[in-house]
Amino acid sequence: MTQLDDLPIRDDLRGLSPYGAPQQPVRVAINVNENPYHVPEVVAHRIVEAIARELPGLNRYPDREFTALREKLASYLGHDLTPDQLWAANGSNEIMQQLLQVFAGPGRRVLSFSPSYSMYPLLTRGVGSEFVTASRDDRFAVTPELAREAIEREQPDVTILCTPNNPTGTGMSLETIEAAYAATTGVLIVDEAYAEFRHDGEPSALELLPGRERLVVSRTMSKAFAFAGVRVGYFAAAPVVADAVRLVRLPYHLSALTQAAAGAALDCADVMLGQVEAIRVQRDRIVEEVTALGYAPYPSEANFVLIGGVDDPRAIFEGMLERDILIRDVGLPGTVRVSAGTEEETSAFLAALAELSRPATA
Amino acid sequence: MTQLDDLPIRDDLRGLSPYGAPQQPVRVAINVNENPYHVPEVVAHRIVEAIARELPGLNRYPDREFTALREKLASYLGHDLTPDQLWAANGSNEIMQQLLQVFAGPGRRVLSFSPSYSMYPLLTRGVGSEFVTASRDDRFAVTPELAREAIEREQPDVTILCTPNNPTGTGMSLETIEAAYAATTGVLIVDEAYAEFRHDGEPSALELLPGRERLVVSRTMSKAFAFAGVRVGYFAAAPVVADAVRLVRLPYHLSALTQAAAGAALDCADVMLGQVEAIRVQRDRIVEEVTALGYAPYPSEANFVLIGGVDDPRAIFEGMLERDILIRDVGLPGTVRVSAGTEEETSAFLAALAELSRPATA
Repeated sequence: MTQLDDLPIRDDLRGLSPYGAPQQPVRVAINVNENPYHVPEVVAHRIVEAIARELPGLNRYPDREFTALREKLASYLGHDLTPDQLWAANGSNEIMQQLLQVFAGPGRRVLSFSPSYSMYPLLTRGVGSEFVTASRDDRFAVTPELAREAIEREQPDVTILCTPNNPTGTGMSLETIEAAYAATTGVLIVDEAYAEFRHDGEPSALELLPGRERLVVSRTMSKAFAFAGVRVGYFAAAPVVADAVRLVRLPYHLSALTQAAAGAALDCADVMLGQVEAIRVQRDRIVEEVTALGYAPYPSEANFVLIGGVDDPRAIFEGMLERDILIRDVGLPGTVRVSAGTEEETSAFLAALAELSRPATA
Repeated sequence: MTQLDDLPIRDDLRGLSPYGAPQQPVRVAINVNENPYHVPEVVAHRIVEAIARELPGLNRYPDREFTALREKLASYLGHDLTPDQLWAANGSNEIMQQLLQVFAGPGRRVLSFSPSYSMYPLLTRGVGSEFVTASRDDRFAVTPELAREAIEREQPDVTILCTPNNPTGTGMSLETIEAAYAATTGVLIVDEAYAEFRHDGEPSALELLPGRERLVVSRTMSKAFAFAGVRVGYFAAAPVVADAVRLVRLPYHLSALTQAAAGAALDCADVMLGQVEAIRVQRDRIVEEVTALGYAPYPSEANFVLIGGVDDPRAIFEGMLERDILIRDVGLPGTVRVSAGTEEETSAFLAALAELSRPATA
């Protein structure tokens, strides 16, 4: 039987394992920050209709420029954005891959502030760049000083700031983003995958786009839009950034089905986002109730909570799984991460946690 | 206004233009080798039903392993293939990109036999590898000797053989593929995007898979399946090759919509492929009738014909466009390329060509 090491794969890939959280059927899946609510039926009908209209013509390649979708994305984001400032791809992972292909690549360096999204190092290695990290403070925040110092030290070609940050939920001030932009001659990507869940009054880096042509703000329809299965990520930036990405994107990368489904969902953005408030309520409830149980959750602007003060994360993970609840051990000592589910799912998790609780610190 | 060169893009991308054939509405579009026939209505219904079943659950990530789709692809291809030998992605371009990411990458070398598919050099450069070419013979064939000599000279990490070859339509013998495999210690990709259109009796490299763990045969649903808008490419290889690609694929790269649509289409493979014979008839008709007009078409195993003996390809292209017919000038001196359309489309092209004809050689 041929083994992986018998194949002539790239040397720097040897010994690695593919990225992937477990996909197994459980009663309560709160491990990958999905939106727990189904696509609303009224929107589902609109999407099916939009797809049905595309079907006869699927023998032809899709609109390579996904013009209608870019118009709808610009309109959804507001901030006076124009369609030529928008770009979309199959999930925000592909957005990030395209940006790294054009602005990083072999011999270049990518900086992020750890802990952060675990795909960044994999995507960076995938394009042949070096991945370097700088530390967050003890509450997982990045201050303007931390950002400036790290960028001056590492001189990255691309810097990625994730806010709200996965897996910690931490927000980031516009001052930090401004400081990072001013400190770098490279490209600054602000990954706002979870932006719609932030508390009222928290800013978006979209406000900083005017006049900053090396700033890219990436978003996704996977989370707030409850559209993880459709795979739509996108970014807003200066039009010239979209032109740069056109040099590396695969032609026709967005299928006609994806364009139709995403467009129909954006037409119903109000309905699609109807559950965001309910999710924010459950997120804040988790923070409050696990605190009462003696844990130390980190403040979260996302649809998940990183719970600190966990004596034995593995035991909590296993105890939850025995109760048919799937959570995430993200590998940060003393923590587990849980997504905000429906009220019922959150209640099930909190009840199970109460049963399992032996907090390390009270 | 910020220009592309003002951005810190990779040096090797400077001055390049994005890949892309013109996308403009015309009466007869025979420029990108699409299948001219709509998805049959009976299949369209099955696809819409399959997608509608996925819709409520689109808030969840899709099956990262697209297990059902791999089963259907294995069953479609036959040759005793098992699902663990199959892999799929968003178009055969993404298939090729994933293979190059894992088996080529920075500092490695990719060989192809030119002229061939114009995306190969772009995909190669995209992963930071060097692209080298070897020549075909004067009829655009690759003999076993040509393959062996080129591989021994260039020592490529990945060799790509396109058969039927785009843009020439040329087939390739199994002897050539066997010789190429025996000569290389790298990976051999046989791109069979147009395989379903080959003449009866022409072989497929699928026959060579047993015992050759560095051989990969790639296919697409864009052409014979009339599914270009859905973006489904796939490959068959030893299971360990799929394992290797898992190291670089983006997690959840195939949307639930894509998986559902492709699965439903494969369930109706007989109907979906129903027009392949009609297309082959038009392809052979083009060869015959342009020969009668004094041109020198190359033998084609694909759904298009490279027509040689064209005095002024640009003039033919423009003359066709004036008649609302879009063909392809692939940049090979003295040639134009046309896809086999419906009988009506082919007739329109042939009538226009007769009008425009001033062949270089009679």
